Amino acid sequence: MDATASPDVAEYALWLGDDALILSQQLGWWIARAPELEEDVALGNIALDLLGHARSLLRYAGTADGRTEDDLAYLRDESEFRSAWVVEQPNGDFAQTIARQLIVSTYMFELYSALRHSGDATLSAIAEKSLKEVDYHRDHAVQWTLRLAGGTEESRERMLRAVAATWPYVDELFRDEPLTGRLDGIAARPSSLRAGFDAVIDAVFAEAEITVPAGFVSAGGGRDGRHFATMGYLLAEMQVLARQHPGATW
Amino acid sequence: MDATASPDVAEYALWLGDDALILSQQLGWWIARAPELEEDVALGNIALDLLGHARSLLRYAGTADGRTEDDLAYLRDESEFRSAWVVEQPNGDFAQTIARQLIVSTYMFELYSALRHSGDATLSAIAEKSLKEVDYHRDHAVQWTLRLAGGTEESRERMLRAVAATWPYVDELFRDEPLTGRLDGIAARPSSLRAGFDAVIDAVFAEAEITVPAGFVSAGGGRDGRHFATMGYLLAEMQVLARQHPGATW
Repeated sequence: MDATASPDVAEYALWLGDDALILSQQLGWWIARAPELEEDVALGNIALDLLGHARSLLRYAGTADGRTEDDLAYLRDESEFRSAWVVEQPNGDFAQTIARQLIVSTYMFELYSALRHSGDATLSAIAEKSLKEVDYHRDHAVQWTLRLAGGTEESRERMLRAVAATWPYVDELFRDEPLTGRLDGIAARPSSLRAGFDAVIDAVFAEAEITVPAGFVSAGGGRDGRHFATMGYLLAEMQVLARQHPGATW
Repeated sequence: MDATASPDVAEYALWLGDDALILSQQLGWWIARAPELEEDVALGNIALDLLGHARSLLRYAGTADGRTEDDLAYLRDESEFRSAWVVEQPNGDFAQTIARQLIVSTYMFELYSALRHSGDATLSAIAEKSLKEVDYHRDHAVQWTLRLAGGTEESRERMLRAVAATWPYVDELFRDEPLTGRLDGIAARPSSLRAGFDAVIDAVFAEAEITVPAGFVSAGGGRDGRHFATMGYLLAEMQVLARQHPGATW
């Protein structure tokens, strides 16, 4: 990656990179813990895809001030992260993880689809590469959503509860911010991604007989460095090794 | 996988499958916790390779009595597992994980190399497929062993400590058992794999200036269902979800 990101582009790359990094860290937990070995493999592969996206985005973000992807992943404090609250939501039970996957992968599919046409060559290249993988992530989440919603009484009840618990964090993903305004033609305008997201979700919910939950909308604040209550624990776990031995390969 | 395993072959497949399954579970922990993002990806990929080997072996083992790979992974008690103690050793620090990887991947390389010529077509096919991946796992462990042993004073000191802590569990891997005697021409005789293992390890240790640790040899007992102290916690974590909801996709 040769191009150097401007400060604004670097900040935008951080938003996207942190979303992928945090979600990847959460999904990694499932390896050898999912309800089926086949599912361990699927979630593990999705986690590694996301980690790949995160690395590309953080590496690009770091070109603005000479930080490495590892500096950005392991040495930033909570307030310096830019992830949205939806990816910070706990794994919960399997349905909760799937509801989060459905929402985030559907959002990421719309995001990277738009970003392929970015005026920034590096972002469009990352989007092009990531889109194929996110397409699979979305299929995976859709299939599980239908399977759980149409499965046993318990699985349906859990799926409905998971969607209701995760929905308040959807709105934050589609809020236009001053930064995305300044990056017109380079960033994907968040509000412009909502229609495509809704179209997919509406179709899935219709087939799964799920109604879009009403009720409270989270204020979020991840793009400004304010994070969900559990984010501190998640970062502590992710960073402890690198921080215990700064500079060393530990 | 169409062939049906005899009870002896199924038991042998369990030995191999459990080694891969337990090591995979341990390595999954490192996703987004390794000292470098690049290493998160590497260890995550190795974990998923091993999970693939475990699934093939457990699926074959299950043909003997109609159990599925998931039955075998999630519904057996500790005494029914057949993993060797070396794969049950805790992740410890990064050096400890690498020492375990060096020993186990070098063993598995010799194992699958021999098993390609097994009289059992299913085992030889699994070995053929797994060998390529284990070859990479071994390279990865060798490179890290050299890097840590030749790195900072601290990294070398940790690498030496890790090798010393793991070495007592090497012997168990190469013990001939009544079962492997009965499976002459089908199983790889454990003792026959030791020379190849020693040749590789001696070369790596020579370059890394590590001397083979003397001192105590663990009794082990994994092939008979006796396991290392931490195995219970590991299984609890791996099985809790499946056991909470038997038969359900949780």
